[in-house]
Amino acid sequence: MRILVTNDDGIFAPGIHLLRARMEELGAATAVAPLTEQSGTGHSITLYHPLRVRDIARKGEPVCYGVSGTPADCVKIAVTELLPKPPDLVMSGINPGGNIGTNVIYSGTVSAAMEAFVMGCTSIAISIDTFKPTAAQYDKAAEVALKVARMALKKGFPRCLLNVNLPDLPPKKMKGLKLTRQGMSRFIEFFEKRQDPRGHNYYWLDGELVDNMPSPDSDYGAVHDGYISVSPLSCDMTYDAVMGDIKRGLSGLL
Amino acid sequence: MRILVTNDDGIFAPGIHLLRARMEELGAATAVAPLTEQSGTGHSITLYHPLRVRDIARKGEPVCYGVSGTPADCVKIAVTELLPKPPDLVMSGINPGGNIGTNVIYSGTVSAAMEAFVMGCTSIAISIDTFKPTAAQYDKAAEVALKVARMALKKGFPRCLLNVNLPDLPPKKMKGLKLTRQGMSRFIEFFEKRQDPRGHNYYWLDGELVDNMPSPDSDYGAVHDGYISVSPLSCDMTYDAVMGDIKRGLSGLL
Repeated sequence: MRILVTNDDGIFAPGIHLLRARMEELGAATAVAPLTEQSGTGHSITLYHPLRVRDIARKGEPVCYGVSGTPADCVKIAVTELLPKPPDLVMSGINPGGNIGTNVIYSGTVSAAMEAFVMGCTSIAISIDTFKPTAAQYDKAAEVALKVARMALKKGFPRCLLNVNLPDLPPKKMKGLKLTRQGMSRFIEFFEKRQDPRGHNYYWLDGELVDNMPSPDSDYGAVHDGYISVSPLSCDMTYDAVMGDIKRGLSGLL
Repeated sequence: MRILVTNDDGIFAPGIHLLRARMEELGAATAVAPLTEQSGTGHSITLYHPLRVRDIARKGEPVCYGVSGTPADCVKIAVTELLPKPPDLVMSGINPGGNIGTNVIYSGTVSAAMEAFVMGCTSIAISIDTFKPTAAQYDKAAEVALKVARMALKKGFPRCLLNVNLPDLPPKKMKGLKLTRQGMSRFIEFFEKRQDPRGHNYYWLDGELVDNMPSPDSDYGAVHDGYISVSPLSCDMTYDAVMGDIKRGLSGLL
């Protein structure tokens, strides 16, 4: 079994090495991740600069790779260029900060897993719903990742992308794994306007997570009820619910 | 009626000004777009740098704004900061190059429209399936954009994101508007490895669009049959088809 491990926090973040080490229980696990933090880069890919790849040695571990690009770039170059064969499984994380609701579209962690899914691999994104996870929470996330990976690798299991989010609780207080849907929680944003020392304006993005359509079946609902949320995602964003309206609207245009 | 017009090719690209001018038939149309080309940036947002906004004067036109960020940043800052009131409609384009199949996840054009949709607006992304559209094709795209916008603004029409793609044909040879689904066509990628003058390796992403699951109902199928494709998209990526398998798999883990 070959496992590719990536993230959006960069090859020097702690979560990826914990995750890679745990994945060794399944097979040969290689870490390929951005050289710099790439949070919020969504499904960005690098078209206007070439990519550089650095071999990075870590004591007692197999060589890993740092890429001068985004999480999606890392998966593309790992699968087509750096690994001797395409991986059986791609893991992305462990990310500090939940990737839930509409925020998955901004998430480098989920986008890396999505890239793997588009390329034909099963993939799992793992996040913890806090920006400062404890060592115990990281360890729990790695344990959950391994469990979910074993499930996804079983014979006959469909190829999928699983977006896993752990609640911000001590591991003993976390409830079990819960199947969820991507919910509609989102950031309500505003910009903070400041002036630089030369009197020119600049803007910082800020915001607050809200859930206007709460549901216990959503990723947001599950995590806020203390469960570990598992949502299957795909790259098909077709909005089926409005197909009929659009069809009627278009027929009026012909 | 207020219309925000944006793109991923930057505020100096021709398509956005053609589109903005045509949208004046509906109401006040303001262009807010990245200062530099942002193709392939997907749903990236800028978290680690502040944003700058430049007023840009164009002869005989209302002021427009260039933003030092991504298409999604432009929509966020336009809606919350630059426009006096939230827009009734957000238009993204006119993009040279189709945004079809799984490639919509990399598309800055579609991501700008998606950002608007997440923020509660109806939005339309317009692309032409060639990197070098003719003046006649740009003009046709603006005409189609106006038609589709009028439809989407009708009373009772559901809020939606419409992804419109014109085929690479002379306008007279284009067939009508066709309702489609986001298809599964995708780029099969490879990296071209080169050496810089100092003997260090670097990699350029390259690839070829393929459609392994062709269907006349897909965006790819419609455009390749000469139709103008209209796909409704949403930000919900839940993979419904595998929910049952995941449920069974997870029940084995509890």
